[in-house]
Amino acid sequence: MRRVSLPRIRDDALALDAGDELSALRGEFLLPEGVIYLDGNSLGPLPRATIARLEQVIGREWGEDLIRSWSRHGWIDLPLRVGDAIAPLIGAQPGEAVAADSTSVNLYKLLAASAGLRPDRRVLLSEEENFPTDLYVAQGFAALLGEERLEVRLVPRARIAEALGADVAVLLLTHVEFRTGEMHDLAAMTAAAHDAGALVVWDLSHSAGAAPVDLGGSGADMAAGCGYKYLNGGPGAPAFVYVRRDLQDQVLSPIQGWMGHDDPFAFEHDYRPAPGIARFLCGTPPILSLAALECGVALVTQAGILALRRKSLALTELFIARVERECAGFDLALASPREGARRGSQVSFRHPQAYALVQALIADGVIGDFRAPDLMRFGLSPSFLRFVDVWDAVERLKAILS
Amino acid sequence: MRRVSLPRIRDDALALDAGDELSALRGEFLLPEGVIYLDGNSLGPLPRATIARLEQVIGREWGEDLIRSWSRHGWIDLPLRVGDAIAPLIGAQPGEAVAADSTSVNLYKLLAASAGLRPDRRVLLSEEENFPTDLYVAQGFAALLGEERLEVRLVPRARIAEALGADVAVLLLTHVEFRTGEMHDLAAMTAAAHDAGALVVWDLSHSAGAAPVDLGGSGADMAAGCGYKYLNGGPGAPAFVYVRRDLQDQVLSPIQGWMGHDDPFAFEHDYRPAPGIARFLCGTPPILSLAALECGVALVTQAGILALRRKSLALTELFIARVERECAGFDLALASPREGARRGSQVSFRHPQAYALVQALIADGVIGDFRAPDLMRFGLSPSFLRFVDVWDAVERLKAILS
Repeated sequence: MRRVSLPRIRDDALALDAGDELSALRGEFLLPEGVIYLDGNSLGPLPRATIARLEQVIGREWGEDLIRSWSRHGWIDLPLRVGDAIAPLIGAQPGEAVAADSTSVNLYKLLAASAGLRPDRRVLLSEEENFPTDLYVAQGFAALLGEERLEVRLVPRARIAEALGADVAVLLLTHVEFRTGEMHDLAAMTAAAHDAGALVVWDLSHSAGAAPVDLGGSGADMAAGCGYKYLNGGPGAPAFVYVRRDLQDQVLSPIQGWMGHDDPFAFEHDYRPAPGIARFLCGTPPILSLAALECGVALVTQAGILALRRKSLALTELFIARVERECAGFDLALASPREGARRGSQVSFRHPQAYALVQALIADGVIGDFRAPDLMRFGLSPSFLRFVDVWDAVERLKAILS
Repeated sequence: MRRVSLPRIRDDALALDAGDELSALRGEFLLPEGVIYLDGNSLGPLPRATIARLEQVIGREWGEDLIRSWSRHGWIDLPLRVGDAIAPLIGAQPGEAVAADSTSVNLYKLLAASAGLRPDRRVLLSEEENFPTDLYVAQGFAALLGEERLEVRLVPRARIAEALGADVAVLLLTHVEFRTGEMHDLAAMTAAAHDAGALVVWDLSHSAGAAPVDLGGSGADMAAGCGYKYLNGGPGAPAFVYVRRDLQDQVLSPIQGWMGHDDPFAFEHDYRPAPGIARFLCGTPPILSLAALECGVALVTQAGILALRRKSLALTELFIARVERECAGFDLALASPREGARRGSQVSFRHPQAYALVQALIADGVIGDFRAPDLMRFGLSPSFLRFVDVWDAVERLKAILS
């Protein structure tokens, strides 16, 4: 997408859509009539291909071929196959990522694995603004080990660098902040953690599929992320887990299940971890959900993560500009970074009546969401949203405010 | 089902089917033509209702209503709703079970929760014959805490009672053994563990949905189990977790995710566990898989667990009798208990060429499975299997042996 001047009239937005290199991608999703969906950051929409694929997986693979599908239809390889499909989106190599469990469970595995590499350090550092489940996972893990071994330390974002002392075992951060969409400099924060001798675990839930992530190039140690946001895997889709290749054989998942065993069907008494990322598998993989996730990831791959990021930036920029122009004087304050490079694919505004405004917008067909106490959050997913949708959404917001 | 004499001719088996109180249940499943499926203990077949339900959940709930479905279609309640549906099958009360994660992940939570109640005891006792994932989970958890705190001790089944010393924190057992189908006396083993001051964690994977389990009546502390075997939830279906009500508020899951928080959408920094079993939730629930599991469980409920058990016993008894009569002299040895009360819903025979026999049976349309080194394992699921299927399966086995 070329850099264009901001639309002045609705036809300009339509012209942007006409020139959008990703315009055909929208047709790959089933989208409800009359709805402008600005919540793809919470739950991505349904890819059309998923409908047919799940019909096949349910009716043919499960229904007809039953247990034989584990080999006949490659069910057993699905977690690694989907991991390999996600890998290029996050700067990983084949064999560095696997799809499994939930983001929370995967973060737990990674905190244990990374803390195990720094047995002489007792601080698990994160930021106060981190997504709560990340903090809860960290607290639960630290409580299990006991505070002599591990303590969770939370600091404001601005003080992470100075908190990276010689006692920090692991830095746990979310790449894109869930409230404001502010994006960390992943390479810089990784380097800062490494300079302090700490490992870094990234939560990519709000960036995977919407912005390129370069785990490999930045040397990041471990990461996990969500399958149901920009990866379009469906409600509660499996998450993914990444461990840098040279670390894989040095670490263990604390949750050792048979699918992470080197030879699951040998039914040995003793756990022997599989080589590579497969050791982060645990129980039997959820086939229906993995098949859906594979379809969702395929659309991101097809579009190209760089093209998605270009459009994402253009959409969020347009949204900010239009809101600030059209809704000026209505007490709205931008909560997201103005600088594109520091922004994920969402835009948030503060307003004293944020909750009521979000409800009114939803009633008017514009689905965003509210985050207490005063935040309106709008996800601008580049895979299906049109520039005219952004235009119309702001018009409706303006009408409600007026 | 009344007690009947064993069929002498194929028509007798057909007569048993004609008189089978559960005969209509078979029609609720989609079953492949020309296949006798003796592997429902590995993967239950596809309920017809699941096809329509998933079409609705995918196309309508996810596709049309998107994020609004969390409230509009009760997605947020699904883990507890499915848990409550499973509860009567395992002798639990409403609010004592929840559907979540995999069996392995749930066992991990329970080992941590139960060991936490016995901080002064350092043995996690299990049996050598336990399903490997259970042992791997125990080993991983013990390794994380360190051997000064917790040691996994494995003993043969016959020596569990004597191994229940004052150092045992938790006894981890699987109700029905995966190789032989031998069923523990759940009440007696629970009482033995309690007498020794230990807690007991039951894996119900091979019994839930095929035999009544009385967790409540036996006073069992905790349990987990599988959704994709006799509960017909589909490949890799979510598992369930049970904690006796009076223990729930004394224990914590080590994997603390936002769905186990008392107020997930308050996005507080600190974890406050939800009251009751909900604290054993963790990440975002997998909606597609939970909806499928709900359909599978509904069929078990509809049939009635006592009727299923009656038929299961009749099927396994017939299978054993027919094999021993028709295949005598072919070096087959029964590996399952002859006494019905000690047998799950599967029958296993040992044979030096077990692998080749199972392959030949599969090629002939009789799907069972092989377990190294010499076991042929046949699951006889009462929900869809006919007596004539048992008759025909044995005829084919005999033909192959001959």
